Amino acid sequence: MKQETATIIFQPSGRRGSVPRGITIVEASRLLGVDIEAPCGDHQICGKCRIRIENGVFEKFGIRSGQEHASPVENRETETLAAEEIEEGYRLGCATTVQGDLLIYIPETSKGGKQVVSKAAGDLDIILDPAVKLYHIKVPAATLEDKTADFERICRCLEKEHALSALEINLYALRSLPGALRTGEWEITVTVWMDKEIIRITPGSTTGGYGMAFDIGTTTIAGYLCDLQTGQIIDTVSAMNPQVKYGEDVVSRISYHMGHTDGLARMSKDVINTINMLIEEAVKNVRSNPELQASTMSRITAEDIIDLAFCSNTAMHHILLQVDPEPLGAIPFSPAIHQSLILKCCDLGLNVHPGAKAFFLPSIAGYVGGDTIGVMLAETPQDSLEMQLIIDIGTNGELVLGNREKLICSSCATGPALEGAQIEFGMRAAPGAIERVKIDPTTWEVDYKVIGKKTWRKDSTSADMKTKGICGSGILDALGELFLAGIVAKSGAFSAKAQESIRFRKNQKTGFNEFILAYADETSIGRDIVITQKDIRQIQMAKASIYTGCKLMMKKLGITSLGSIKIAGAFGSHINNHLARVIGMIPDCPQRILHSVGNAAGDGCRAALLNRQKRKESDRLCRSVEYLELTLEDTFQQELVRATQLPHMIDEFSHLNQ
Amino acid sequence: MKQETATIIFQPSGRRGSVPRGITIVEASRLLGVDIEAPCGDHQICGKCRIRIENGVFEKFGIRSGQEHASPVENRETETLAAEEIEEGYRLGCATTVQGDLLIYIPETSKGGKQVVSKAAGDLDIILDPAVKLYHIKVPAATLEDKTADFERICRCLEKEHALSALEINLYALRSLPGALRTGEWEITVTVWMDKEIIRITPGSTTGGYGMAFDIGTTTIAGYLCDLQTGQIIDTVSAMNPQVKYGEDVVSRISYHMGHTDGLARMSKDVINTINMLIEEAVKNVRSNPELQASTMSRITAEDIIDLAFCSNTAMHHILLQVDPEPLGAIPFSPAIHQSLILKCCDLGLNVHPGAKAFFLPSIAGYVGGDTIGVMLAETPQDSLEMQLIIDIGTNGELVLGNREKLICSSCATGPALEGAQIEFGMRAAPGAIERVKIDPTTWEVDYKVIGKKTWRKDSTSADMKTKGICGSGILDALGELFLAGIVAKSGAFSAKAQESIRFRKNQKTGFNEFILAYADETSIGRDIVITQKDIRQIQMAKASIYTGCKLMMKKLGITSLGSIKIAGAFGSHINNHLARVIGMIPDCPQRILHSVGNAAGDGCRAALLNRQKRKESDRLCRSVEYLELTLEDTFQQELVRATQLPHMIDEFSHLNQ
Repeated sequence: MKQETATIIFQPSGRRGSVPRGITIVEASRLLGVDIEAPCGDHQICGKCRIRIENGVFEKFGIRSGQEHASPVENRETETLAAEEIEEGYRLGCATTVQGDLLIYIPETSKGGKQVVSKAAGDLDIILDPAVKLYHIKVPAATLEDKTADFERICRCLEKEHALSALEINLYALRSLPGALRTGEWEITVTVWMDKEIIRITPGSTTGGYGMAFDIGTTTIAGYLCDLQTGQIIDTVSAMNPQVKYGEDVVSRISYHMGHTDGLARMSKDVINTINMLIEEAVKNVRSNPELQASTMSRITAEDIIDLAFCSNTAMHHILLQVDPEPLGAIPFSPAIHQSLILKCCDLGLNVHPGAKAFFLPSIAGYVGGDTIGVMLAETPQDSLEMQLIIDIGTNGELVLGNREKLICSSCATGPALEGAQIEFGMRAAPGAIERVKIDPTTWEVDYKVIGKKTWRKDSTSADMKTKGICGSGILDALGELFLAGIVAKSGAFSAKAQESIRFRKNQKTGFNEFILAYADETSIGRDIVITQKDIRQIQMAKASIYTGCKLMMKKLGITSLGSIKIAGAFGSHINNHLARVIGMIPDCPQRILHSVGNAAGDGCRAALLNRQKRKESDRLCRSVEYLELTLEDTFQQELVRATQLPHMIDEFSHLNQ
Repeated sequence: MKQETATIIFQPSGRRGSVPRGITIVEASRLLGVDIEAPCGDHQICGKCRIRIENGVFEKFGIRSGQEHASPVENRETETLAAEEIEEGYRLGCATTVQGDLLIYIPETSKGGKQVVSKAAGDLDIILDPAVKLYHIKVPAATLEDKTADFERICRCLEKEHALSALEINLYALRSLPGALRTGEWEITVTVWMDKEIIRITPGSTTGGYGMAFDIGTTTIAGYLCDLQTGQIIDTVSAMNPQVKYGEDVVSRISYHMGHTDGLARMSKDVINTINMLIEEAVKNVRSNPELQASTMSRITAEDIIDLAFCSNTAMHHILLQVDPEPLGAIPFSPAIHQSLILKCCDLGLNVHPGAKAFFLPSIAGYVGGDTIGVMLAETPQDSLEMQLIIDIGTNGELVLGNREKLICSSCATGPALEGAQIEFGMRAAPGAIERVKIDPTTWEVDYKVIGKKTWRKDSTSADMKTKGICGSGILDALGELFLAGIVAKSGAFSAKAQESIRFRKNQKTGFNEFILAYADETSIGRDIVITQKDIRQIQMAKASIYTGCKLMMKKLGITSLGSIKIAGAFGSHINNHLARVIGMIPDCPQRILHSVGNAAGDGCRAALLNRQKRKESDRLCRSVEYLELTLEDTFQQELVRATQLPHMIDEFSHLNQ
């Protein structure tokens, strides 16, 4: 007998669930809280709901997927989609019905409810001194009396007027030099990289030169388009890292490479394609920004982007560059290279100006990469008199501790729970996600707030909420509040008292206890949104690993108190610091020394884009920061197990001061 | 009425003529003295006679060509040729008959009578100090105690053992580093460019590293494959410059670029393809060389070529690099760049090791390029106490005059006559070409020698000669001997006395007087091989332009005598120095100071490949040598007209000493 439901997994979000057979893929996406754009109202007209059905057996997900599990291609689809698209497995989500298990990829362009920029750019106080600068010069025309070649002619002028000597020129610039000089009537703008290499020649007086800083996270990629002449961010873009389909964390990506001959090239190509898409998106945003219509910026093209800077963890760095990441997966976890790299964008397949270069921040160790260097460039613990602890929470957690005297760093495997992954109703920080939770300690009444709505649950109607899931900060809030209300015990298990709540139940299918945060009628998915015992375990593991890291590092430096604690990362900027202490994720400390610093890695990467001294500093930092391998510390296991528990009381942490 | 003959033009030689319709293309090639390889004896079996029929209207040649002017494709052809080849216009020369005018391209592989390496490599006395060197190192394995990254680990060792510091690494080498270290059990060979950049990593102990020097002439391209560890040439290859189809000289190539949007890219691609073909050919030659079977060289691949050096005239340099050559075509003829260039081979599409770089010798002026710098690197007039005059004769003539005190240079438009082009029976220096001519001053009997045969005409039978045409040195000999015998007058016209020779006649068709060098029965083309009045005019123009250049340069330096005269170039190594003086091509001088130095440009390019100091010297020379624009000298026209005449007597040149 044919089954009545099918398993659907949406990529890159990873959202999965059972849906009735026969419904369309767009309908399935709504049931599972994944939005596919369908502005025409499922009338198979707009073609916006393009999705791709992946073909093959996906062991990781335990399903087989393919076109044979979907309705046949309809005329509407052949009219709307290109023949090559259909060949590649693309379909219209509103025209295609579910006939069996499917792994469905939703292109960025088809996503509804664009992600709220979680990697928001912080304010930076940087002296503007970019690697790439523009020089406008006018040279005397070549004559029979002075027939010096074009290059030497402009060098003479650049040396005299701008003290630039021993310049080189790249092939692309050289190719355009004779034409530009003559079109511009011997007046040109020369774009110079690091006072060393001419990378672009444009006729006449050109203003405008843009750079882009990228933070390549395991889960999220963020890009900041900056005006190199003012240092201002003119657009911010972000997307999921498309590599999530090969595995959620760096270890599974390394495994994918080891198991597939073309795995490295494929993962690299995926991320390069996404970067190119973000470049295009940023350029498009600026061009269509009504506030910039009067400015020359409104004519920006990708070719106007003349410098790039990248930060990422070491594995993402290696994979992007197609450098074998296998040694990162085994003791002693050595990277292929520590120092910063400068590569030609065109060698990497990045669609910006052909002469542009890409700067990659250095990697400290196999699990502490350029993103941590970025955090340090932004937060400058190396200049600090007081002892700073910086916790950068992404798919992995990286920790930096120290001051101007000494800095140490380490990494801890937090897992993706804090980003909303591997959580039953977890989702990324997009509209509809529960981001704040409050539980009345006496009535146990739940109130919550979703992204995209200003009012809390209690001030809205059920039908108004259209809640879709829980994002990282919501999960942490929920656990903190459940613990404070006594519904969850010190061990992380639901307490005996929990039975008293009508929101508590045992899921008959999974066998796990769960607590309802939002009832089905408040959601857009038609089901109760719960936090399960399994979800709580995931968060406990994550918070324990961060706490253990902090503790062992403080022990290493022999300190018991801190001048400041900074929480960085997409997640860090949203969490409730108080509750993070409540559940024992961070060392106990006075509220005043606790700061959320947003996407500090991205800020630091932007600093490297805008100031060449920061690039030098990045290599100095990489050489001087000491890496601590937490798992090799004698007391690691013991501390980790202990830290899994929720604290008795907040002042439980006073043992740090013993 | 249908015409009975058709015009056939063979490329890249440029040989053209009328042939009867209905004969095969191989037969036509024999009539016109162009050999297509047909080892199976025209039996349509071996497929060696692959040729391509060019399609379109060729204004330059005044013909329309295409498959419709040839017999239809036969079964034999579809069996032998690939479908894509037929699509591209390829045919079997022995199966295809002429039905109308045709422009036919003969691929290098289908050429019979391989060209005698006219650009032979001279002996060079160079200290071996190549830009690229190999270092074999063994590093300690990474451990938890010493988990330094791979790159920094090998740098530590390279600094300690080989004093190499501040090394960079390119992307290709970085990609192979982790794998090579682990495959080689921490023993690797590091290939370093200029003590600065790691360009290759190979596991274990690698020996063998090759470089190739290329001399890109307007007409001929020569390549020298060298062992970078011994400096020895291990193979020499050459081919016609495929750009000849766009025009014989640099001016017509520049015009082609100006008239065709894609002309520059197309010409560049043609020459890059030929270079790649020569690289493959050289590698193949070494692999199949029986003398090298025991050596590791027999396993050479193109990937083992890790450094390249190039010399060429300025226009060929610009065109290869796709740098706009248009300014070279107009006053003041300024190049885009003087200084030497270092480019990545892969950016240029050169199929060698992906990390290899290409070094381009600097260009002195629009018409004195890196080839002249090459000549100086090989002949070192810059170190000479005595006054040297170097005449490099190719499609253009370049002159260098001076000593260690001062060097000047200039160029003269010799035209391609001295290379056998634009001469009625002219051909390149291949077997069957008349290379030496003697005319008895009293009996006017002609004797000659062809390339590929040891005996002269008088010691052979007519049927044995199989003469095909005249190459540059033969043409010069012929004119010198005709002049000495009194058959040609001082003006260059046939003298009244010429009538007395049975070899003299007026061609009824062309109206030109001509003199028979070889009778039809001595030839393989079945026609008398003659030197025409028009041919003599071409040579007069060429020799006058060289002589005028020499004279004006000597005047410029205020000198009347020379320490040595060196004749360089493909042609220079074959000419009879005595006759060159007889016809007034070079200043009169004692025979003892006159030397043929072969392809000095190629030798100098090889010097730059093998010794990095020579690269520095090339830029110093480029800055210090003064360029003289001959056509701007007051007396240029007057001198040129005067020099067109043949001298009264050899001592006519005594005016140089006035």
